Amino acid sequence: MSFTLGVDYGTNSVRALVVDCATGEELGVSVFNYPSGHQGVLLDKNNHHLARQHPGDHLVGLEKSVRAALADAAKKNGFSPDKVIGIGVDTTGSSPIPVDAKNVPLGCHPEWAKNLNAQCWLWKDHTSHNEAAEITRLAAKHRPQYIAKCGNTYSSEWFWSKIWHCLKTDPAAFDAAYSWVELADFIPSVLSGINDPKKVVRGVCCAGHKALYCDEWNGLPDKEFLSLLDPKLAALRDRLYDKAHDATVAAGSLCPEWAKKLGLPVGIPIAIGEMDVHYGAIGSGIKEGVLVKAMGTSTCDCAVVQAGKKVADIPGICGIVKGAILPGFYGIEAGQSAVGDIFKWFIEVVCLGDGKLYVQLEQEAKSQRPGQNGLLALDWNNGNRTILVDPMLSGLLVGQTLYSTRAEIYRALIEATAYGARAIIERIKEYGVPIDVVVCCGGIAEKSAMTMQIYADITGCAMRVSGSSQACALGSAVSAAVLAGKAKGGYDSFPEAQAKMTSLKDIVYEPKPENQKVYDDLYALYRLLHDSFGGVKNNADLSGVMKELIRIKEVQSKAL
Amino acid sequence: MSFTLGVDYGTNSVRALVVDCATGEELGVSVFNYPSGHQGVLLDKNNHHLARQHPGDHLVGLEKSVRAALADAAKKNGFSPDKVIGIGVDTTGSSPIPVDAKNVPLGCHPEWAKNLNAQCWLWKDHTSHNEAAEITRLAAKHRPQYIAKCGNTYSSEWFWSKIWHCLKTDPAAFDAAYSWVELADFIPSVLSGINDPKKVVRGVCCAGHKALYCDEWNGLPDKEFLSLLDPKLAALRDRLYDKAHDATVAAGSLCPEWAKKLGLPVGIPIAIGEMDVHYGAIGSGIKEGVLVKAMGTSTCDCAVVQAGKKVADIPGICGIVKGAILPGFYGIEAGQSAVGDIFKWFIEVVCLGDGKLYVQLEQEAKSQRPGQNGLLALDWNNGNRTILVDPMLSGLLVGQTLYSTRAEIYRALIEATAYGARAIIERIKEYGVPIDVVVCCGGIAEKSAMTMQIYADITGCAMRVSGSSQACALGSAVSAAVLAGKAKGGYDSFPEAQAKMTSLKDIVYEPKPENQKVYDDLYALYRLLHDSFGGVKNNADLSGVMKELIRIKEVQSKAL
Repeated sequence: MSFTLGVDYGTNSVRALVVDCATGEELGVSVFNYPSGHQGVLLDKNNHHLARQHPGDHLVGLEKSVRAALADAAKKNGFSPDKVIGIGVDTTGSSPIPVDAKNVPLGCHPEWAKNLNAQCWLWKDHTSHNEAAEITRLAAKHRPQYIAKCGNTYSSEWFWSKIWHCLKTDPAAFDAAYSWVELADFIPSVLSGINDPKKVVRGVCCAGHKALYCDEWNGLPDKEFLSLLDPKLAALRDRLYDKAHDATVAAGSLCPEWAKKLGLPVGIPIAIGEMDVHYGAIGSGIKEGVLVKAMGTSTCDCAVVQAGKKVADIPGICGIVKGAILPGFYGIEAGQSAVGDIFKWFIEVVCLGDGKLYVQLEQEAKSQRPGQNGLLALDWNNGNRTILVDPMLSGLLVGQTLYSTRAEIYRALIEATAYGARAIIERIKEYGVPIDVVVCCGGIAEKSAMTMQIYADITGCAMRVSGSSQACALGSAVSAAVLAGKAKGGYDSFPEAQAKMTSLKDIVYEPKPENQKVYDDLYALYRLLHDSFGGVKNNADLSGVMKELIRIKEVQSKAL
Repeated sequence: MSFTLGVDYGTNSVRALVVDCATGEELGVSVFNYPSGHQGVLLDKNNHHLARQHPGDHLVGLEKSVRAALADAAKKNGFSPDKVIGIGVDTTGSSPIPVDAKNVPLGCHPEWAKNLNAQCWLWKDHTSHNEAAEITRLAAKHRPQYIAKCGNTYSSEWFWSKIWHCLKTDPAAFDAAYSWVELADFIPSVLSGINDPKKVVRGVCCAGHKALYCDEWNGLPDKEFLSLLDPKLAALRDRLYDKAHDATVAAGSLCPEWAKKLGLPVGIPIAIGEMDVHYGAIGSGIKEGVLVKAMGTSTCDCAVVQAGKKVADIPGICGIVKGAILPGFYGIEAGQSAVGDIFKWFIEVVCLGDGKLYVQLEQEAKSQRPGQNGLLALDWNNGNRTILVDPMLSGLLVGQTLYSTRAEIYRALIEATAYGARAIIERIKEYGVPIDVVVCCGGIAEKSAMTMQIYADITGCAMRVSGSSQACALGSAVSAAVLAGKAKGGYDSFPEAQAKMTSLKDIVYEPKPENQKVYDDLYALYRLLHDSFGGVKNNADLSGVMKELIRIKEVQSKAL
C-alpha cells in the first residue's frame, strides 16, 4: 500500500489529507484555523480593500494539520507514515509573500510582524486597483500580448499589482524584501528546505495566471516593460525566477528538518505548487469538455484544452496558461470574486446569524418559485473578476418592498451568483471551448441542493458534484502520486491517477424547463444591470426593471 | 376654561387628545391599537399591494380612545367633559369605505365581514395600479384639467382607482355598496348621527386631493367622463355628493347616541374631516412660507398659498386644492409612500430587531460621516408618490461590500428618504411656491436627532420640530376650536388659534456646509438612479455610480 498527502491552504484555514493511492480513499484529515486577524484574515478597518495573512499562521498550520491528519490516518488498518510516497500542496493565489534573502517571510521578522505590507498579500486584497489599471493601460500600449491571454485586463488581485502597490505605498517594506514568492511556491520550498528565493521552484500555474509569465516571451515581463512601471520592479525581476514549471517537475524533496517535524520519510518528492482550484479541478476529474467550479468564499471555474489545439484569447477571463492545471493542456481559469462570502455577509453581518440560519433560510427559500421573491441582485460585493475584471464594482439589490423577507433576499443573492456563473459559461463557450458537463466542488455544492438546482436552472447545464468534499487537497495528493510514479506505488499519468483516485457523486441536478424559462427573463434583467453598472453599455433603459420584476413575481405567485 | 378634542386615525392606531383652547396644553391622551390584521392592517399574502382596515376597528377605537383621553384629562385641575366645546377628526386618506344606504360600512355586516373588498381601502393599498394608469390615460385625453392639479398622474392610492378596482375584481361587493365614504368624512358623520350617505358632509381635503373634486368643474368628475371608466361609476356619482367643504363648515354636531357613549355634551360641533397630515400641518403652525413635513410610516409635505395668488400646476405633486388645509388658502400636498415603514422593514423584517435596535443602530450610524458608508439607496420600497407618482417602483440598495454593516445600511436608508424629500422640496420651489422654513412633526422628527441633521444637510433647509408630539390630533382640536368660535371659548380664525394653541420646539437643525458638499455629490448619484429607474431619463450612464461611491467613501474615511 502507498499513500500521498495533499495540503490545501484556504482563506480561513489549512487542511491536510492522507489519501490511499490505489483507491483515492481519504484515510485521515485535519483542519487548522489560522489564529490571526478576523478568521485568519488581517483587515484594515479604514480600507475595506485590504486583506492579508500572517505567514507564521501558514507555517504553524503546516505542521499542525499534517501531524493531525497522519494521526487520524494511523487509526486505519494498513497505514503507516513510512508508506507516504509524496506531498502535494495547493493554496489561494495570487497570494505573494515578501521574503528575505534566506527565503524567510518578512512578516516572520519581529520588526515587521505588525506591518500589514510585510505579510502575505491574500488573493482577495484589492488595495492595488490603481496599479492594476495602470498595468493594463501600459501593457495595452506597449505589450498587448502580455494581457491578451488574461482577458485584456490585469487584476488588482494579481502579483505585479500588489508588489507595485507595496513599492508605492510602503517603500521601506518593499526595500526590505529581497524577493517575493507565491504562497503556492513558498510552502513546497519550505518542505524542501530551500533557503534561497532564487532556488525556489516556481509553478507555472501562479506564474502564468498571475505574473504574466509565458514561455512565448521568455518568462516574466521584460525589464524594459517593468521599468515603465518602476525601475525597482525591473531590478526585482533578477531576484525572481527565469523558468516556471508544470506538474511534471518536482518542487523538491522533503528536507530532514521538516521530515522530522512531520514524522515522514526524508526525501519523498514534493509536487509543484498549484492554486487550490487548479488542483481541485484535478481532484474533481477535470478533462476536456468538463468545467469544474470550485464553490467556496469565491468561485473559480477551470477548463482544459489539449495543448496542440488553437485556443482563442477570451476577453474577461483570468487566463489561458499551458500546463497550469494538467501537463500537456492549456488551463483556462475564470471566477467570481465572492460567492460564499456574499451569503456569509448576509447571514452573519446583516442578520447576525450563525450556521443554523443558513439551514433555516434555505428551508424557507427552497419553497419559493423562481422570480417569486421579486428581487434581483448583482454578485459584486467583492468586485467582479470575470467577465468584467473590475474590483471597483460593488453589490446591488433591487426590487425590495416593505415585505421582502430574509429568505427572499438570501435566495436572490444565491441567484445573483448563479447569473454570474452563467455569464462566465456563456463567455467561455462563445470562444469555442467545449463545456459538456459542470462538476462542482466545495462546501456549497455538497450542502445546498437548492443552490445546485438554482445553478442548473439558471445556467441550463446539468450540475454534478465532486465525489470528494476536499477536492483541492485530493488533487494535490493526486499530483504527488503522479510525481512519485508507478514504481513507487503511484501513477505514471494524470488520467490513470484520476481514474482511480477521483469520483463523482451519484446525484445529477438537471435543469427544469419551467424554471429555465422564468430565469431566462430574469437573466435578461441581470444582464441589463450588469452591462449598465459594469460599463459594457452606457445608454440602457432601466425604467422597466422594477416593473418587470413585479410582473414576474405576480405571475409566479399565481402559478402556485 | 374650554377644551376641544382631536381624534387622529393613523395606520396602526387611533389617538384621542384633549386640548386646552387657551394654551394648547394637552391635558389627556389615549391611543387605541386596531385589533385586526397585522398591526391593524389587513393583508393578503399573495398580493403585497393590498392593505385594508376593518371599519369595526375604527368605531371601537373611537369610543375607547376618546373615553380614555377624557379620563386622562379628568386627572387635571379645571377639566370636566362639559367644558368640551367641539371635536375635530383627521384620518389617513384616501381611505374610502363602501357603505350601505344607511351609512353602515359593508364590512360591519356579518356576511361581508371576511371580504377584504368590503373593508376600508387603506391609503397605502396599491392594488388598483392598472386602474390608476387608465384614469391617467383617459383624463389626459378627455379631461386634462382633472389631473393637471394633481401632478398629471392619478394615483392607485386614490378614491376612483380603488372603487373602480373593486368594481372590476369584485362586482358583488361593489353592487352591495350603496355609496363610498372617505374615513375622514365617515367618522364625523358617525359622531353626528348621519345615517344617509348623501347627507354626509364631505371635506374638500379628501374630495379635492383624491377624488378629482373641484368647484371649477362643478364638483366631482362629470358622468360622461366616469362612463368612459364604467357606466356603473357614472351611476355611483349620484349617490356620492355635489359639494365638498373647507373647515369653515361643520360636519355636524354630536348626536345623543355618541354623546352618551363618549360622555360629552349633546350638540357640540364636529369639525369637517381632513386628512391627518393636513390637520397636522395646522397643528404645526403652517402658514405661507412654511413647509410642514409629517414624518411617520410615510411622509406628507404640506404648504399653503393665499387663494388670491396664481399658483402653477406642479408636475408630480399630489394636488393643489383650495381650502384643503386652511380656509382661504390653496393647500399643496406632496409625499413619500414610505419613510418610517422602510426603517421598520429593515429593523424588524430584515434584522428581526425591536425598539432597542433602532437606538443601537442610530448610535452606531451617527458617528459615520456622510458618504462613509459607501452606500446609496432608493426610498421606493412602497413605490414613489412624489415626484414620480408610480406605485410600481421598488427599493434599491447599491454599494454594499462584504463588510457593509447594519448601521451603514440603516443610515443609507435614512439618507435615501432625505434625498426623496429634497426632490420634493426642489420641485415645489421650482414652481414658485416659497419655502423658508421646514417644520417636521411625527415620531421620527422627535426621536432621531441624527435623522433631522441628515435631512438638514441633504435638503439644505434648516429643520424645526413641531412643539406637539401629536400635531395631527392637535390640528383637529384647533379646527374644532375655530369652528366653535370665540363666543363659546374658541377662536374666530385659524391664525389666532394657531398662535395660542401651537408651538415649535427650541431646537433648530442647521445644515452643515461640509456635509452639504458631500451630500450634493451623493444626491447627483441618487438623481441618476432616480431618473434611470424612474423612467425620467432612458439613456443614463451608470457605469460610474459604484466607483464614485467608493471614491467618496475613501475620501470621507480619510477625513476622519
